[in-house]
Amino acid sequence: MSLGRIDFDTVIVRFGGEVGIKGEWTRRSYERLLVKNIKKTLEYHSLNYDKIIHTRGRIYIKTGEAIKICKKLSKVFGISSLSPAVETSSNLDDIVEKTVSFAANVLSSKKTFAVRCRRVGVHPYTSMDVCRRVGQKILESFPELGLKVDLEKPDISFQIEVRDDKAFVFSDVIRGVGGFPLGSQPKLVCLLSGGIDSPVACWLVMKRGAPIIPIYFDNSPFTDETTLKRAVKTAKVLFEWAIGFPKELLVVPHGQNLLEIKEKCPEKLTCILCKRMMYRIAEKIAKKTGAEGIVTGESIGEQASQTLQNLRVLDEAVKEYPVYRPLIGLDKLEIEHMAKKIGTFEFSIERAMSCRAVPRRPSTKAKLKVVLECEQNLDVDFMVNRSIENIRSISC
Amino acid sequence: MSLGRIDFDTVIVRFGGEVGIKGEWTRRSYERLLVKNIKKTLEYHSLNYDKIIHTRGRIYIKTGEAIKICKKLSKVFGISSLSPAVETSSNLDDIVEKTVSFAANVLSSKKTFAVRCRRVGVHPYTSMDVCRRVGQKILESFPELGLKVDLEKPDISFQIEVRDDKAFVFSDVIRGVGGFPLGSQPKLVCLLSGGIDSPVACWLVMKRGAPIIPIYFDNSPFTDETTLKRAVKTAKVLFEWAIGFPKELLVVPHGQNLLEIKEKCPEKLTCILCKRMMYRIAEKIAKKTGAEGIVTGESIGEQASQTLQNLRVLDEAVKEYPVYRPLIGLDKLEIEHMAKKIGTFEFSIERAMSCRAVPRRPSTKAKLKVVLECEQNLDVDFMVNRSIENIRSISC
Repeated sequence: MSLGRIDFDTVIVRFGGEVGIKGEWTRRSYERLLVKNIKKTLEYHSLNYDKIIHTRGRIYIKTGEAIKICKKLSKVFGISSLSPAVETSSNLDDIVEKTVSFAANVLSSKKTFAVRCRRVGVHPYTSMDVCRRVGQKILESFPELGLKVDLEKPDISFQIEVRDDKAFVFSDVIRGVGGFPLGSQPKLVCLLSGGIDSPVACWLVMKRGAPIIPIYFDNSPFTDETTLKRAVKTAKVLFEWAIGFPKELLVVPHGQNLLEIKEKCPEKLTCILCKRMMYRIAEKIAKKTGAEGIVTGESIGEQASQTLQNLRVLDEAVKEYPVYRPLIGLDKLEIEHMAKKIGTFEFSIERAMSCRAVPRRPSTKAKLKVVLECEQNLDVDFMVNRSIENIRSISC
Repeated sequence: MSLGRIDFDTVIVRFGGEVGIKGEWTRRSYERLLVKNIKKTLEYHSLNYDKIIHTRGRIYIKTGEAIKICKKLSKVFGISSLSPAVETSSNLDDIVEKTVSFAANVLSSKKTFAVRCRRVGVHPYTSMDVCRRVGQKILESFPELGLKVDLEKPDISFQIEVRDDKAFVFSDVIRGVGGFPLGSQPKLVCLLSGGIDSPVACWLVMKRGAPIIPIYFDNSPFTDETTLKRAVKTAKVLFEWAIGFPKELLVVPHGQNLLEIKEKCPEKLTCILCKRMMYRIAEKIAKKTGAEGIVTGESIGEQASQTLQNLRVLDEAVKEYPVYRPLIGLDKLEIEHMAKKIGTFEFSIERAMSCRAVPRRPSTKAKLKVVLECEQNLDVDFMVNRSIENIRSISC
């Protein structure tokens, strides 16, 4: 279908789904936030629009760049679907004329069609009247195409949305990403390694409305610049989904901590002790930034460190915040599938140096008592503070 | 295709995916566990089999009930796919004969086919030889069908798996549920209300290998028997995925606690205080049963009680165990989709009494300090212990 030949003047934004079923007050505040996020996205991409009309259950964007806008807004959380449309008055003759001229541009290779209508407001006709009149006129106007009406599985569906004194004609419905508007929940601190999993975990909480503060633990000399670069690239992709929000990756120096852990503690506990330290630093960052929790990319059993026994020992290191693990019940294949959809997968699989501190036989069933004893050999508070004081921020 | 006419004598069980990439020791112990779970499932469903042959990367079940067995085993965690097959020797003439007679039963309405072969062991022919000889013979044997070879997108694919002195012929690959064998991780205590979400949360951790101990909080007189029945029904469905494991639903009396909370605390905090009490009871059950954590069906923002601020206040009630929330980053539609696949959806939407204690305006941003003050009015330890002492167990 070559929608490019139609002079679209409107984008219809729908935010049904979960936003729609909220109570009045919450729904309104979510909708206002969504309009704000839409505006920021349009400005960021230098997309022109005349105005944004926000009515109950719909946002209409008046613009000459409808198709481009639909594409960009399909990445804005909270939008369930979008349609490039042409506006006309709610006068039935106008609707018929506009839909027929719309049809003229897209019908060439289509054999069957349907006309559908939704109406809000008082009009001297029913929705059924609209469908009948428009359908009849399309059949009459293009006898050479041998068209047929098919209400079940049409090749193309002409849709008319009548709202009070206006009407909108469209045929395409572009799927939005869904979820809740970013910013409808408080911030979360996210451990971002840049591997396949952690960016997906970040994205899932963003989709539920929480802006992220991604933190990368720089384990050099056990990793190198390639590992950091990979994390930065995945952060950049994530921030494409968060236009208008801060785009900072916090880089926490952690190599010295790891070195001391290796020197002073049993080798097989290295990963557990390293990650407990990460959790503690993340907790401190949450406190400093006013975040409400910590997000990790762990999935049960995916790695040796991610047995339920080990996760319990890790969890114990965080005292005042919940640790959210959005991937906890997902399979590797499902996670990879999401990473591809999000756009982080291609960067996550770039060659990067794996942490050289990982022991050959990491503990799969760490005992909290033993771990706590080992930590007696470390100056935990000092190490946490040293890392916090040396954080640097990378703009993504 | 009417596979019913073929005398299958074998089921090929594959457990690739995540089990396959584990280290040798872990992989072997997972495989042994999987064989055990398979045996229990076959016994439970009174399905006959002669023997189970466990080789590296495959399990072969010798049976006259291959199709029935494939269907039942597709619900066993850790299996990535299954095929009903016929066995023959690795002699090339035998393979050709067996595949042609297999083909005779399924080719009627198929126009294009492919032959594929995988070989493990030493043989006087290559895999390519097998494909060529079999393909040639099929074309010669059914001239009346006008068959064509199509290696890209065949209507049917005949597959031959040669393993040392044996070979297996099959055409169908039935998808398994994947994940890890149940029991490869320790137990988890799961809050099961019977609504749409909590059964899905249970199922996801089961899929990662953790057996569940589901607990239902009986809020009567604020709910009634319909709510309990719904929970029991969803538990029954979940246990169909856990054959050979205990099938007990723990019913915790919680109505009296809720009554006291309503009497002594601000109305808008009812749900937070109620749920904190549930978390505490769950923690105590985890300790008693040797479970390694607590699972809930919470998803960010899905309900008023599930803002990140509230979740943080809830989380604080659990001291020694992680709270896992497998649905935390999922949309309602995704959760419903999974519930349908699992089989719990139809029961979760049955009419059941909603909790009548839920206030009209529940707090969406509870403050921990205020909540802790309110709990001063409650004898928390006494309430927890009273519930624990009066738990009853329902066999599902």
